Amino acid sequence: MKLGEFGEDRLLAQLLPGLSRNRSVVLGAGDDCAVVRFPRQDNFQLLKTDCVVEGIHFTAASPPASVGWKAMARPLSDFAAMSGVPQFALVTLIVPANKTLAWTKKIYRGLEKAARTFQVAIVGGETSDSSGPAVISVSLTGFVEKDRWVGRGGGKAGDELFVTGRLGGSLRGRHFKFTPRIEEARWLTKHFLIHAMMDLSDGLGADLPRLARASGVGFEVDENVLPRNRDCTVTQALNDGEDYELLFAVSPRDSPRLRKSWARKFPRLLLTRIGRLNRKSQIANRKWHGYVHFK
Amino acid sequence: MKLGEFGEDRLLAQLLPGLSRNRSVVLGAGDDCAVVRFPRQDNFQLLKTDCVVEGIHFTAASPPASVGWKAMARPLSDFAAMSGVPQFALVTLIVPANKTLAWTKKIYRGLEKAARTFQVAIVGGETSDSSGPAVISVSLTGFVEKDRWVGRGGGKAGDELFVTGRLGGSLRGRHFKFTPRIEEARWLTKHFLIHAMMDLSDGLGADLPRLARASGVGFEVDENVLPRNRDCTVTQALNDGEDYELLFAVSPRDSPRLRKSWARKFPRLLLTRIGRLNRKSQIANRKWHGYVHFK
Repeated sequence: MKLGEFGEDRLLAQLLPGLSRNRSVVLGAGDDCAVVRFPRQDNFQLLKTDCVVEGIHFTAASPPASVGWKAMARPLSDFAAMSGVPQFALVTLIVPANKTLAWTKKIYRGLEKAARTFQVAIVGGETSDSSGPAVISVSLTGFVEKDRWVGRGGGKAGDELFVTGRLGGSLRGRHFKFTPRIEEARWLTKHFLIHAMMDLSDGLGADLPRLARASGVGFEVDENVLPRNRDCTVTQALNDGEDYELLFAVSPRDSPRLRKSWARKFPRLLLTRIGRLNRKSQIANRKWHGYVHFK
Repeated sequence: MKLGEFGEDRLLAQLLPGLSRNRSVVLGAGDDCAVVRFPRQDNFQLLKTDCVVEGIHFTAASPPASVGWKAMARPLSDFAAMSGVPQFALVTLIVPANKTLAWTKKIYRGLEKAARTFQVAIVGGETSDSSGPAVISVSLTGFVEKDRWVGRGGGKAGDELFVTGRLGGSLRGRHFKFTPRIEEARWLTKHFLIHAMMDLSDGLGADLPRLARASGVGFEVDENVLPRNRDCTVTQALNDGEDYELLFAVSPRDSPRLRKSWARKFPRLLLTRIGRLNRKSQIANRKWHGYVHFK
């Protein structure tokens, strides 16, 4: 059935019932706004929005449940980057009228799966039609304890740089299946003082310079130790993007304990020391550009 | 200058500095998430997302500052519908690469103007390119006191129905210039017990049945008293949509005091008693459909 045969009320009546809620939800999707309770006050609130666009982040042939997963997992990865706990999601679906109801429901199935996996309640679901490509936009709110919040700007010269997992080649399919590193980030800030952290969405080659710039320092990286996915070159590991792994900086004093406890806690997820922050960058190299938007 | 010549970092560097902030903002746009302080706990948090799509809600010829105003004012109108106080906005711009930087900056100027008018801080700004029409998606968070929150579901048989302002003909230009009725809604819930309220976005003909359905009651409306904009028929007042006026239900006991105080407080904004809620609808009429999406 084509969406063109549907009114918005009927479409939302198909999509919204049964969305995951949590105990803080007073009123979920369906009224003018969602209404939720505030958590305790020794927290900061976090807010993040992100979207995926057909033809850019996925294609008409991409499995819709995977597209939905990705649309939710991307802002979740930004929550991980700040050691945040996500709580509530608002979803906007912009769908051309020639998409089917089945396709749209599968998008929601993927959104829901990612939301449930991280105990997030979807409390708003807007739809709009469009003459152009489908867009799924997800806004997330949640919190982080004031003493556990990590931005990009706290890195210090001398800090060691770590990345989780492996880099490169995500377009072979991993960009639809990645796991936001929320559990790992929460563990990191519970046990260690993390000076700066971000998630790798545009590729280490673009993202590390951003972290260094925000911290007012330079960086040096040993390209030979970069954890690469199978059959990936260094250039691919630097620039493919969509890795959604964590990049973070810690004091060299914490490094040995970190590496040992990490290996015990997350035996199946690689943690690699790739270099360090310094007073001035050693690398000014064409390989370091990552994915550049609008090009 | 075309956006295709810009990287995302450079584009955001043009758009994000100088965005309105408020005292609750710890970290605004630019890091992985925005970070804000929580207000006091005797409040509920409100969340709302909404988008405008080129070809649907505006055209390529629409003045971009008006498009930006509209994109922000629409979810603000939903906050008004719940008597909420908006605080933080996240903006996603999906722009084809052939749009100019000047166009994009004017969109932001309109977003900013609406945000400043209602003391909202824009704390996140994402961009993505697209092969299709431009989309501006805005997510808002804010709060409402627990004893002042108004949904659609609290209307009772016998309640009188009021609308603010005039209805119909919004496409002649008012849909780009409307004022979200936040001040009016805050005043209403401060001084009166409002049983049910919503903003009229799809037209009274579509929205009143929604309010009645959510409240489990019927309604009767005197079409002759509907406050119409100049040169509008009853059918247009019911179905044009995009009025962004308030529709609400109060006990008939409060009606005389409400009408008298309203006229003193808002002498330039019409308030009209259009009918009442009852046990079963008197009107089952083809005129009552409003704007139907996906048609």
